[in-house]
Amino acid sequence: MDKRKGIFITLEGCEGVGKSTQLKLLKEYLASTGQEAVFTREPGGSVISEQIRAVLLSPENSAMNPVTEALLYAAARAQNVREVIQPAINAGKLVICDRFLDSSLAYQGYARKLGFERIYDINRYALDGLMPDYTVFIDLSPAAAFRSKAKSESLNDRIEHESAEFHEAVYRGYGKLADTSPDRFIRIIPQSEKTKTAESIVEALKSRGVIK
Amino acid sequence: MDKRKGIFITLEGCEGVGKSTQLKLLKEYLASTGQEAVFTREPGGSVISEQIRAVLLSPENSAMNPVTEALLYAAARAQNVREVIQPAINAGKLVICDRFLDSSLAYQGYARKLGFERIYDINRYALDGLMPDYTVFIDLSPAAAFRSKAKSESLNDRIEHESAEFHEAVYRGYGKLADTSPDRFIRIIPQSEKTKTAESIVEALKSRGVIK
Repeated sequence: MDKRKGIFITLEGCEGVGKSTQLKLLKEYLASTGQEAVFTREPGGSVISEQIRAVLLSPENSAMNPVTEALLYAAARAQNVREVIQPAINAGKLVICDRFLDSSLAYQGYARKLGFERIYDINRYALDGLMPDYTVFIDLSPAAAFRSKAKSESLNDRIEHESAEFHEAVYRGYGKLADTSPDRFIRIIPQSEKTKTAESIVEALKSRGVIK
Repeated sequence: MDKRKGIFITLEGCEGVGKSTQLKLLKEYLASTGQEAVFTREPGGSVISEQIRAVLLSPENSAMNPVTEALLYAAARAQNVREVIQPAINAGKLVICDRFLDSSLAYQGYARKLGFERIYDINRYALDGLMPDYTVFIDLSPAAAFRSKAKSESLNDRIEHESAEFHEAVYRGYGKLADTSPDRFIRIIPQSEKTKTAESIVEALKSRGVIK
């Protein structure tokens, strides 16, 4: 039996904090240094999960109940874990996922007030025991992120349309999770220069032996 | 506060046992006797739940994991319960739902071997305490149903494409559920004439004071 076991890293943060840019820069760093990694995202990552993503993010679906939402995120996660993430980890690979369980905890558990416990319950069978080894948390408040975002950028999906109070609650939710799991959470305070932030992420992952 | 409380009836059975026909005949009986009822179905019933139904039943999605499937059914249920079923019951109405929790228990819990307990767990927050007052179970084995089905009829969705063994397991699952909840389950043995079966259903509901 193959005993190799990969590493599972997730990237978390509020809307507009530059998560996509940092993922792109991390991907470039790994490619330029010849290190292999599997990149995936939530909700999504597999064909079925991307169909669930479309239901979740459609701005038309504003009547969606928080419990429906939490169950749909868990369904997309269950499929992505089994089809993409777990097989790659079992093959000894480094897997980097844009959002994971902590998003459900911060968004549905904290900001939508379902509670962390209910989200853990709903996700128990979806996760099948899988938890991230490390979670890179881009620690920037939505208020600060919105200020730095160009005014011309439009709001694309149902979640982005939520109120400023909602996004502040998400941020407080992340803070609580980071406080509870200080060994797993890697807090990254973004700097004005994106490449500096990217360097901080690379250094943090290097120091934990995740990448070289 | 309005204290009226309606009645919640579900209709269950394997594929091809004539569930749709019986629903149509029941609807006609209620209309002809001037009795009001809200008809809904699972997965589906609300706009969002119908989008989830499309993901669930697409024949393309054969790679769907049983846990993903169970979570998607629960998500569709959570929305239909809150948007359609519970408000109608609170308004004192009779609600008749084509499939409900027992389908998840028989299909995913028993036939897909996730177990009844896991399905109850996954559906706990979806149901929000709601259970059917009575469940009309059309008690016909899939083998018998398939024999009576015209050969020309095609298989339409992902679930219908499952093997004969799968559908037999679903039937055994229903049997176990009916044995466990004899007060809730109303077993209807279909007769060769559809109108006779419809009369049995009407009589059974009348004798329990559900309809007149």
